[in-house]
Amino acid sequence: MFSFTLQHTSEEARVGEFSTPHGTVHTPIFMPVGTQGTVKALDPTDVESTHAEIILGNTYHLYLRPGMEVMESAGGLHSFMGWDKPILTDSGGFQVLSLGASMAKHSAPLSKITEEGVEFTSHLDGSRHFFSPEKAIEIQRQLGSDIMMVFDECTPDKATSSYAKEALDRTHRWAQACYDYWQEHERRSVYGKYQALFGIVQGAMHKDLRRLSAETIAGIGFDGIAIGGETVGFNMEGTIELMDWIRELLPKDKPRYAMGLGRDPDDLIRAVRAGFDMFDCIAPTRFARNGTLYVGHLTGTSPKTWEFESEFHAGRLQIGNARWAKDHTPIMEDCDCWTCSQGFTKAYLRHLFNTKELLYYRLASIHNVRFMLRLTEQLRASVLAAQ
Amino acid sequence: MFSFTLQHTSEEARVGEFSTPHGTVHTPIFMPVGTQGTVKALDPTDVESTHAEIILGNTYHLYLRPGMEVMESAGGLHSFMGWDKPILTDSGGFQVLSLGASMAKHSAPLSKITEEGVEFTSHLDGSRHFFSPEKAIEIQRQLGSDIMMVFDECTPDKATSSYAKEALDRTHRWAQACYDYWQEHERRSVYGKYQALFGIVQGAMHKDLRRLSAETIAGIGFDGIAIGGETVGFNMEGTIELMDWIRELLPKDKPRYAMGLGRDPDDLIRAVRAGFDMFDCIAPTRFARNGTLYVGHLTGTSPKTWEFESEFHAGRLQIGNARWAKDHTPIMEDCDCWTCSQGFTKAYLRHLFNTKELLYYRLASIHNVRFMLRLTEQLRASVLAAQ
Repeated sequence: MFSFTLQHTSEEARVGEFSTPHGTVHTPIFMPVGTQGTVKALDPTDVESTHAEIILGNTYHLYLRPGMEVMESAGGLHSFMGWDKPILTDSGGFQVLSLGASMAKHSAPLSKITEEGVEFTSHLDGSRHFFSPEKAIEIQRQLGSDIMMVFDECTPDKATSSYAKEALDRTHRWAQACYDYWQEHERRSVYGKYQALFGIVQGAMHKDLRRLSAETIAGIGFDGIAIGGETVGFNMEGTIELMDWIRELLPKDKPRYAMGLGRDPDDLIRAVRAGFDMFDCIAPTRFARNGTLYVGHLTGTSPKTWEFESEFHAGRLQIGNARWAKDHTPIMEDCDCWTCSQGFTKAYLRHLFNTKELLYYRLASIHNVRFMLRLTEQLRASVLAAQ
Repeated sequence: MFSFTLQHTSEEARVGEFSTPHGTVHTPIFMPVGTQGTVKALDPTDVESTHAEIILGNTYHLYLRPGMEVMESAGGLHSFMGWDKPILTDSGGFQVLSLGASMAKHSAPLSKITEEGVEFTSHLDGSRHFFSPEKAIEIQRQLGSDIMMVFDECTPDKATSSYAKEALDRTHRWAQACYDYWQEHERRSVYGKYQALFGIVQGAMHKDLRRLSAETIAGIGFDGIAIGGETVGFNMEGTIELMDWIRELLPKDKPRYAMGLGRDPDDLIRAVRAGFDMFDCIAPTRFARNGTLYVGHLTGTSPKTWEFESEFHAGRLQIGNARWAKDHTPIMEDCDCWTCSQGFTKAYLRHLFNTKELLYYRLASIHNVRFMLRLTEQLRASVLAAQ
């Protein structure tokens, strides 16, 4: 079974934990993204060294490659990739629409949404595929993740109010269909282990739709509630606004997951302050690969006074800068990530980055992922220490 | 000081060890190549996990990037890259000629050889540089390697006999100039540590020139003797032939290094059988990145009976092959490399390779490098056990 325990709150910020068949997760938590069965550039022991307690896998990508036949023969994603801690999988809903829409170079029509689901084009070879709510859950059962997400439509913010309402009603019917399919299969993966299922609140930037969605999703009985949408994690003003719209409608005893949020350290601080518990984002690893390394510290002793302080704009150091050519010190003196604690220097990292050496990508990714996880650990400790 | 101890021989095959300021190296030994201050895709602890006792650094590449100013400010290459075991550096002689010749896209003229040295074009930005024998040693003194190589000209096999003789005479004068510069600086790096210097036997595929070169280089008084040339390690028939031409002229109490040799497992077996002690090659890591993984075993109990057995041609498994899609076993069941012993499977490696995930390059490189080092360990044990 999946159980979430809320241990402490301070203002709206929450500290809790939940258990899964692959272990316990302490919230607030940042979840590194392992799109194709690997957190980019990192091996499972690297990921563990960042103190990650749960990682993400992407249903759309894993369904296309290596495919479900390979995945089932491996006994699921944990075993395939050698990660025995919790895994959360998305439903593919976001990718079948967003990647479908970027496939104009292929002759096939773009993604097509019907009541039954989404017909979409593989971004790899242009082949056509179809995901229904049931199919999306079935694939996640084959992946054997600890937390599954419902199949939904992430409606663009620029959609008309009437389209947004139509899409939201369909997304709610799909959420119910996912729930029913999950119940039919006794909430278990094809390997017999319990899988949690989270609902997703959509509704773009319409307050009435967001509140309707929060009530509807909260009413179905999922193990946790997520918020999705273009704005979430991308536009933090809008993200905090919509968190404020719906917070009172969310059950207190279930984890709250802001999907795709965690680009900047400050984003995590703001989202935890707004009462959310789980976050994922590709930015820490993508930034790392592009030469952007996080540097800075949490200050303040309560949610109201929390701030992110850094000598760099948004906490982003550019490692390719000539300024670091002879800087033989770690990225951050007091960072406990493997890269910093092994003594790799900014001068060396800059050299590896400028020469495009493969080692760079791993060392930089370890730092950025650990940075985000350490920040959530500090937020957690701060909430626990606060009245 | 540098000292080589020959511990045992069996037929022509030799077992020995030498000591350097950064530790002892047991021969025969394979030396992974760390061109730009990193063995591609591996961190220093990965390299240690392959049981590498010494790695290579490339003078030409490190001179261009990060440059000697950065290198000296770091305290040398060991400290810059975080590797505290022995390092051998080449002289740049090979690259200033071979990379210069591939620079036709730049408007600057190609490399120009004079009695004083080689004027060459950076493959990075087309800028012009000049290496003399003294400069090549000085750069290696700034790198602080444990073994330096003399500056030489690697004459193409297709050069006329008269050009080959002219080039060889110059290479011998350069070898003496390197030796003299080394003596002037008390055989020490700019950091005060002892550096060995190895001479290089050239002479293309001319028996008389190779023998002349072996006698000349052996007479100068280097700490070790290398053989260079287009053929070495590339054409193994020719390599063994020229080893046979010169072996009797080489001092028995100095290590013999075949430069660039170690593409196929069988190459190492043949070169050890022919009485050589040290080998380096980029192939194990380059093959790995291209999807070629070594599989196979040494059989036989004495140099005469040694053979490399593998179910794959030349011991090369192609990991991208569909055959491995559902093969959930390690690359080699009895391999003790980190990748195999952690349980990463062929199916997973194939997936990572086909999706071009960065993790693949590291896992595959660890296997191939460890494979070559384990093979030299087995050859060593076999020589020690033989009468």
